[in-house]
Amino acid sequence: MLTIGIDLGGTNIKAALVDDEKGILHKFSFSTEADKGVDHIINKLVEAIKVAGAKAKGPISGVGVGSPGVISYDRTTVSNPPNFPGWTSVNLAAELKKRTFFDVYVDNDANLMALGSSYFGMGKTHANFIMVTLGTGVGGGIIYQNKLFRGATGGAGELGHVMIDYNGPASNSPTIGGIEAYLGQRFLSRLAWKRIQSEPQNPLFERYKSDPESMEPKDLTEQANLGNALAIDILRDAGEKLGYAIVNYIHILDIRKIIVSGGVALAGDWILKPAREAALTRMMVPYHNGFEIMAETLGNDAALLGAASLPYEYLPD
Amino acid sequence: MLTIGIDLGGTNIKAALVDDEKGILHKFSFSTEADKGVDHIINKLVEAIKVAGAKAKGPISGVGVGSPGVISYDRTTVSNPPNFPGWTSVNLAAELKKRTFFDVYVDNDANLMALGSSYFGMGKTHANFIMVTLGTGVGGGIIYQNKLFRGATGGAGELGHVMIDYNGPASNSPTIGGIEAYLGQRFLSRLAWKRIQSEPQNPLFERYKSDPESMEPKDLTEQANLGNALAIDILRDAGEKLGYAIVNYIHILDIRKIIVSGGVALAGDWILKPAREAALTRMMVPYHNGFEIMAETLGNDAALLGAASLPYEYLPD
Repeated sequence: MLTIGIDLGGTNIKAALVDDEKGILHKFSFSTEADKGVDHIINKLVEAIKVAGAKAKGPISGVGVGSPGVISYDRTTVSNPPNFPGWTSVNLAAELKKRTFFDVYVDNDANLMALGSSYFGMGKTHANFIMVTLGTGVGGGIIYQNKLFRGATGGAGELGHVMIDYNGPASNSPTIGGIEAYLGQRFLSRLAWKRIQSEPQNPLFERYKSDPESMEPKDLTEQANLGNALAIDILRDAGEKLGYAIVNYIHILDIRKIIVSGGVALAGDWILKPAREAALTRMMVPYHNGFEIMAETLGNDAALLGAASLPYEYLPD
Repeated sequence: MLTIGIDLGGTNIKAALVDDEKGILHKFSFSTEADKGVDHIINKLVEAIKVAGAKAKGPISGVGVGSPGVISYDRTTVSNPPNFPGWTSVNLAAELKKRTFFDVYVDNDANLMALGSSYFGMGKTHANFIMVTLGTGVGGGIIYQNKLFRGATGGAGELGHVMIDYNGPASNSPTIGGIEAYLGQRFLSRLAWKRIQSEPQNPLFERYKSDPESMEPKDLTEQANLGNALAIDILRDAGEKLGYAIVNYIHILDIRKIIVSGGVALAGDWILKPAREAALTRMMVPYHNGFEIMAETLGNDAALLGAASLPYEYLPD
């Protein structure tokens, strides 16, 4: 079965023709030129769909679009995406269907990462799992009985804003002490820099003193791999916080398979091992059975594969 | 439609014949005599079912049993219920069906409170809601699309052990800073007593100095109603903590109707108003729309009505 996945970003529109068994067959990229307005972006999306669709040697079962902004429960309409000037509320599904004749569905990136994992990634063998996306922000998606768990209005899985300390640090949200305030890329860099400052002999000090916020988790990981004790400790702290948040997810959802993806997740066991350990110290014993934290392996294709998986949700079982 | 609800407690077995439209028709109580062993308790349960069933003027569609202990995902087997000596693992559904010929289903009290609310209580008009039970412990049940959300193994909704401060106080669980450690009856009494001690002129001091742990939330509520500022403040603190936990539930589940039941919930707006306010300060703005905290009104019958609702989950839609 063939579908098209679209990843709508502020800079680029990526498109892929995807086979449900073989994965991505063809991949394309277009510049979004978001400043040229909504009509221009829709033209670009139509072009992306047509270019990808032209490669298909068989019928297309639908188009999935990953988009920033607030997505309506019926997965048609995108409201107020950040960095898209002039875009208030657009029924993207209707606009694109009118011009391409394909069934089009829209959802947010974190949900689509979960769905992509479910069909193509680490989630393939799990009917129930929680995807935690660790990037600039921290987000998530919940797969329950092989489908996205969407809550009452489609907003389920805001996992980065689950608090672990009501007196904790702030992030870009009214939630204080949410996990994003510890593990979001910028927040992690800031927390790291506070500690690096007290060790001017540390290689990380010399390298980031002019621009601490440019520090990325991969830099900490590199140093951890070289045996830098401070880098290891910073990542362990971050992992512990993630572990605490995971306890909250599991006690609410009783879904015990956790899949982690995104930039911070590349730190691998420097983060995931302490996360596992911290979670087990705080988790009620009956939930230990079957508990697992894994890193997603789909890499950069996850967003496109996730978008291409969205039409599968609408096929008869 | 008629069903039978059974509430299996360490001291009493309660039973009710329930009509899905009229509610409880007949109610009975039997002593459990848990120390006499499993066979004796099963005999008692059979007796309870037969006595309630004898009152039925029509067919019985099934029996629901609310039980302590760990319940198997298929809702048949109860393992290690506290205060039932010698009870390791019993397939209660099979034992009772063999002796009564009714279809029997078992679940835990908090889930059944949610289900009872869904069919007979405040939850009746909501397809999605979260039930928080505030009693000796703090528990919960999640109704999603008019059914119990059970997670991967039936353990979803352990809402009392959702942490709001990873450095916080302990309760009877490895989870530190879980909401039960603030709002569980004994924990609330202890926290209250710490503060009452510093006000020896407060009426609460005189009354509870010989046995602080006997203080119940209703005593604080009584004093709050009389204008006792300390009592009001203690309940407000508890409400705030509840509000923080609710933010975690909502960010994960996107289920925005919260129904609160149990002893502590009787404090009503002394707890629920600060809970609402605290939740709104920490909740991401898109989730405010439709957010509501309500007190359950079913009172003491909630457990029986919940148990009697369990067979409804197995009827064709």
